[in-house]
Amino acid sequence: MTKRAALLMGSKSDYKTLEPCLKTFAEFGVELEVRIMSAHRTPAQVVAFVEQAEANDIGVILAAAGMSAHLAGVIAAHTVLPVIAIPMKGEASIMDGLDALLSMVHMPPGIPVACVGVNAGKNAALLALQILQGYEPELTEKLHKSRESMAKAVMEADAEINSAV
Amino acid sequence: MTKRAALLMGSKSDYKTLEPCLKTFAEFGVELEVRIMSAHRTPAQVVAFVEQAEANDIGVILAAAGMSAHLAGVIAAHTVLPVIAIPMKGEASIMDGLDALLSMVHMPPGIPVACVGVNAGKNAALLALQILQGYEPELTEKLHKSRESMAKAVMEADAEINSAV
Amino acid sequence: MTKRAALLMGSKSDYKTLEPCLKTFAEFGVELEVRIMSAHRTPAQVVAFVEQAEANDIGVILAAAGMSAHLAGVIAAHTVLPVIAIPMKGEASIMDGLDALLSMVHMPPGIPVACVGVNAGKNAALLALQILQGYEPELTEKLHKSRESMAKAVMEADAEINSAV
Amino acid sequence: MTKRAALLMGSKSDYKTLEPCLKTFAEFGVELEVRIMSAHRTPAQVVAFVEQAEANDIGVILAAAGMSAHLAGVIAAHTVLPVIAIPMKGEASIMDGLDALLSMVHMPPGIPVACVGVNAGKNAALLALQILQGYEPELTEKLHKSRESMAKAVMEADAEINSAV
Amino acid sequence: MTKRAALLMGSKSDYKTLEPCLKTFAEFGVELEVRIMSAHRTPAQVVAFVEQAEANDIGVILAAAGMSAHLAGVIAAHTVLPVIAIPMKGEASIMDGLDALLSMVHMPPGIPVACVGVNAGKNAALLALQILQGYEPELTEKLHKSRESMAKAVMEADAEINSAV
Amino acid sequence: MTKRAALLMGSKSDYKTLEPCLKTFAEFGVELEVRIMSAHRTPAQVVAFVEQAEANDIGVILAAAGMSAHLAGVIAAHTVLPVIAIPMKGEASIMDGLDALLSMVHMPPGIPVACVGVNAGKNAALLALQILQGYEPELTEKLHKSRESMAKAVMEADAEINSAV
Amino acid sequence: MTKRAALLMGSKSDYKTLEPCLKTFAEFGVELEVRIMSAHRTPAQVVAFVEQAEANDIGVILAAAGMSAHLAGVIAAHTVLPVIAIPMKGEASIMDGLDALLSMVHMPPGIPVACVGVNAGKNAALLALQILQGYEPELTEKLHKSRESMAKAVMEADAEINSAV
Amino acid sequence: MTKRAALLMGSKSDYKTLEPCLKTFAEFGVELEVRIMSAHRTPAQVVAFVEQAEANDIGVILAAAGMSAHLAGVIAAHTVLPVIAIPMKGEASIMDGLDALLSMVHMPPGIPVACVGVNAGKNAALLALQILQGYEPELTEKLHKSRESMAKAVMEADAEINSAV
Repeated sequence: MTKRAALLMGSKSDYKTLEPCLKTFAEFGVELEVRIMSAHRTPAQVVAFVEQAEANDIGVILAAAGMSAHLAGVIAAHTVLPVIAIPMKGEASIMDGLDALLSMVHMPPGIPVACVGVNAGKNAALLALQILQGYEPELTEKLHKSRESMAKAVMEADAEINSAV
Repeated sequence: MTKRAALLMGSKSDYKTLEPCLKTFAEFGVELEVRIMSAHRTPAQVVAFVEQAEANDIGVILAAAGMSAHLAGVIAAHTVLPVIAIPMKGEASIMDGLDALLSMVHMPPGIPVACVGVNAGKNAALLALQILQGYEPELTEKLHKSRESMAKAVMEADAEINSAV
Repeated sequence: MTKRAALLMGSKSDYKTLEPCLKTFAEFGVELEVRIMSAHRTPAQVVAFVEQAEANDIGVILAAAGMSAHLAGVIAAHTVLPVIAIPMKGEASIMDGLDALLSMVHMPPGIPVACVGVNAGKNAALLALQILQGYEPELTEKLHKSRESMAKAVMEADAEINSAV
Repeated sequence: MTKRAALLMGSKSDYKTLEPCLKTFAEFGVELEVRIMSAHRTPAQVVAFVEQAEANDIGVILAAAGMSAHLAGVIAAHTVLPVIAIPMKGEASIMDGLDALLSMVHMPPGIPVACVGVNAGKNAALLALQILQGYEPELTEKLHKSRESMAKAVMEADAEINSAV
Repeated sequence: MTKRAALLMGSKSDYKTLEPCLKTFAEFGVELEVRIMSAHRTPAQVVAFVEQAEANDIGVILAAAGMSAHLAGVIAAHTVLPVIAIPMKGEASIMDGLDALLSMVHMPPGIPVACVGVNAGKNAALLALQILQGYEPELTEKLHKSRESMAKAVMEADAEINSAV
Repeated sequence: MTKRAALLMGSKSDYKTLEPCLKTFAEFGVELEVRIMSAHRTPAQVVAFVEQAEANDIGVILAAAGMSAHLAGVIAAHTVLPVIAIPMKGEASIMDGLDALLSMVHMPPGIPVACVGVNAGKNAALLALQILQGYEPELTEKLHKSRESMAKAVMEADAEINSAV
Repeated sequence: MTKRAALLMGSKSDYKTLEPCLKTFAEFGVELEVRIMSAHRTPAQVVAFVEQAEANDIGVILAAAGMSAHLAGVIAAHTVLPVIAIPMKGEASIMDGLDALLSMVHMPPGIPVACVGVNAGKNAALLALQILQGYEPELTEKLHKSRESMAKAVMEADAEINSAV
Repeated sequence: MTKRAALLMGSKSDYKTLEPCLKTFAEFGVELEVRIMSAHRTPAQVVAFVEQAEANDIGVILAAAGMSAHLAGVIAAHTVLPVIAIPMKGEASIMDGLDALLSMVHMPPGIPVACVGVNAGKNAALLALQILQGYEPELTEKLHKSRESMAKAVMEADAEINSAV
């Protein structure tokens, strides 16, 4: 059974910061539906989207928001799909996004979200792909290859720095 | 036109901490509807309640929640009534409720909440009563009297400490 | 009975950051008296202004200040009108305005202020307009319309991003 | 294909705090392997366990640790299975476990972990069960039922509080 | 010219924590006027007291308050006497009194206060006595003696621990 | 008896930030000895200077330092003169100088320092001048005048903003 | 060449918390000189002790202090021996000893200290023993054995928990 | 017996910030092996390097990493050599590197690291050189000279500022 992922962001201004997220899905060839929806400005749209997510073959939902970042929690309240929270650091953040991180990660017992680091769109994508392995076993091989190429990049930087010295 | 207030709390465990809030409404003779509703566990109930609030002669809504305290924000997303946020400090809090405070106070532009201090149920009640002055002019006199009796209590403590020395 | 709002700011340097606040009042057609008064440098002016506020048909007072932001608290000590506190983040702030936020939000029992987020002048204005509904029932309709146009803007951004992909 | 979960904790002292995690797996009838392994004291054991995890039909790994909580990151470095990080608050914590939270959540790009709240063993379990839906479709129904019973509990508390007043 | 000191505290509940402050003044034989006055509940009393302070032979004012601790700032706004701020940590504090510390120490340019540590009543007293040296030269000798006896106590503890081992 | 003030800074790089401090002393016509001395790099110089301070007619010492800002504490350990601590925010600061603030303000019982806000050189100067009133009674008048001109500046800004609107 | 270690603590009240430090030295059979000396109350004693440390065959100095924890920095200013800083969390701490940690760890360039975690006396001892390997090669073997017994303890706890389940 | 030092950094992007570290080793004529290795992307390389470190005549290991900075802890888990942790502040840091600092400094009992300040590469180098004194006694003299030249630089800056005034 093929599953897609969805990324909801609270504001268009987050789009640029989230590009590594979109790019990672593209590299893995997994479909990602990207939507701008706000927990506070368009709550009905969020709920409608989330309640249709299972039926629409979505296997994991990513939510990016800043400040009092309620988006992931509001999504999680309406689905039992895994929800990945990406706290965003914007101009209006306090303590470099700690406000958004605490708003997202400290969910009450019963309604979990999976929180990644501040602005960590790439890691959110990789976590989503790890989760989708349950539906798409061929992702496992791709994830291992991605790890190998990351390791190779580090080892090349290591070699370079030493040959340079 | 008579208006009531409503207090929504995310969990029964907050009830005891909020007693000074209930007591303050009682002292001022203003009706307060108290409900346990969770932004994450019973979101539909929250939305249904809030969407009927104006029609139900509610003039101000108080929301008390801890941790990733989304309740006030979820309420504010569904009404243009003033929403007062009470961040709660519980066993699971980080930094004495700073998580709840930041989750509540840092709302995105367009959807305000009126935040009071951590666990500050009494101040939330007084703020609500100040807001209800627009509907109940006789509250003004009562609020001034309340101030006078507070001042008197401080002055008596001052007198006591000096006569004791 | 018509009520106006007043915005007191602690320093002229806050004026620019507060423009969205002034603009919001203008959009809603509600009169806003803007004053520069300092809790520490011109305390007598603050007290004199606040003690006349009720008589001068002011229905809500907004106070913007940074650092040890005492302005809202000093105002609240002299009136039973609702006081909205806007913590300001300036060059001299610690932790992006957390100093001002804590100075404002953590008022002692009995003297509430309604705190919004750091630099959140627009939300302060909207909260003030929500509070003024008690005196100006026609604001309710305008607030609902403002919500609708915000929602529409988010939905248009959502449409745009999807047609662009 | 049946998948199990594994919970690694850095210290025996975390066992009691994690009981809601174990209990949740038991309630859902999903096998959980519980191990005490330390990223710092028995790193070889951690790596050996993790490298065998895929082959041992483990579908998700939970890691609980406090202070400089490296356990989740060390696990994530050796597997592409989803890793859920549970920051623990202990006697030696700074700022109620913020040290562990930041140590866990802020992973470098490429190696994600899914972080839950401080001490949030129950949410970690539920998140793991949500992830295992990819392998065990019957979990979906159970997760929905769990939500319903949580909602029911809140609604009963709400009813109780109102009938009591 | 003989000068006295004054200690204003925002609430009777701070009295016990401040006893080392009172005791230190007693030990040095310097008169201390102790008053309970609140920046928010009895602001007029505070201003009246402070405006008479110079005429009443007060040479330094100590102010102890918690939470949004405005007392020292309000005092400083009405006098050019040195004002010593004692941030108090109470049940309602956030982050062990960091809220009060930031509320007190971060005064705007032009109106200084001299801040000591959280709950540091003894140090506030010693700082006041150091300041009063300008009026009471015999305090210098007493302050040096106090230092010597502190040093002696540390040296005795050092000797004790070593003879014990 | 005429007293001077001394300002010790831990590093030449703090000089520019401290110019408002120097300028304030110049405006009041009070002599200020400015020295660069480091608690860690030239501790003997610091101690030698401080031990001669009383004999050299110094009435108050200001200490400016950043990071693990020990300078004020080291000075205070060697004198009973009032010591004013100015926490500095530099490139290497954590949380906008909170590291320096906590390093300075939280002195152990017995050895007080008078802490002002981060980078608050002007307020440190004014506090020093307030303290020197004990030796230079004519400073009182000058301090009152300074307050008046500050108040006038605020009132002019207020007038300007209102005539402009 | 045989080298000893020295542990200076700022206050007798830290003695109990530091017992694991003393015990660790005893287990490794390395001499530890324990002294109570205060950077602020007995600074001359600290300097005298440190300046004689090299001559007295001390190879590493441990310094434990709380609040504005200057002891390690003052020691480091007077020696080129490695100095290990142990930030202490006491009743008067802010944010669980973060004040002491920042006071100790953030030393200016040129004068390093080696900081361990809050209250981490045992780790300070082990770090000291690791450093003394340069003088006492037989410590290496003992340190490896200590690691093995720690690992064994974790593995036994792991075995126990699994046999118990 | 001659010992070398090794510096491992988690990412090539840290190289520039660490140049003062490399330069300090060069000035003291002590060999430093610089490697790029990641606790999360190339964990096997890290372990292999560390397990050979003792045999390769390495006497101290420095580890620089940001965010969830696990590198120092992972190294310390595999060696009894002293490990110096350098928390790095990068673009993705929270609260100016406090995340990395807490991730590094708060190691569990039994596995110490020696933490220096955020970005404090120079101090890490000096601490390493202090530690290497056990193997290279001639470093002691060089370290004292380095202190003298630092002191001289401060005294010259002091002289300059005073002659300039």
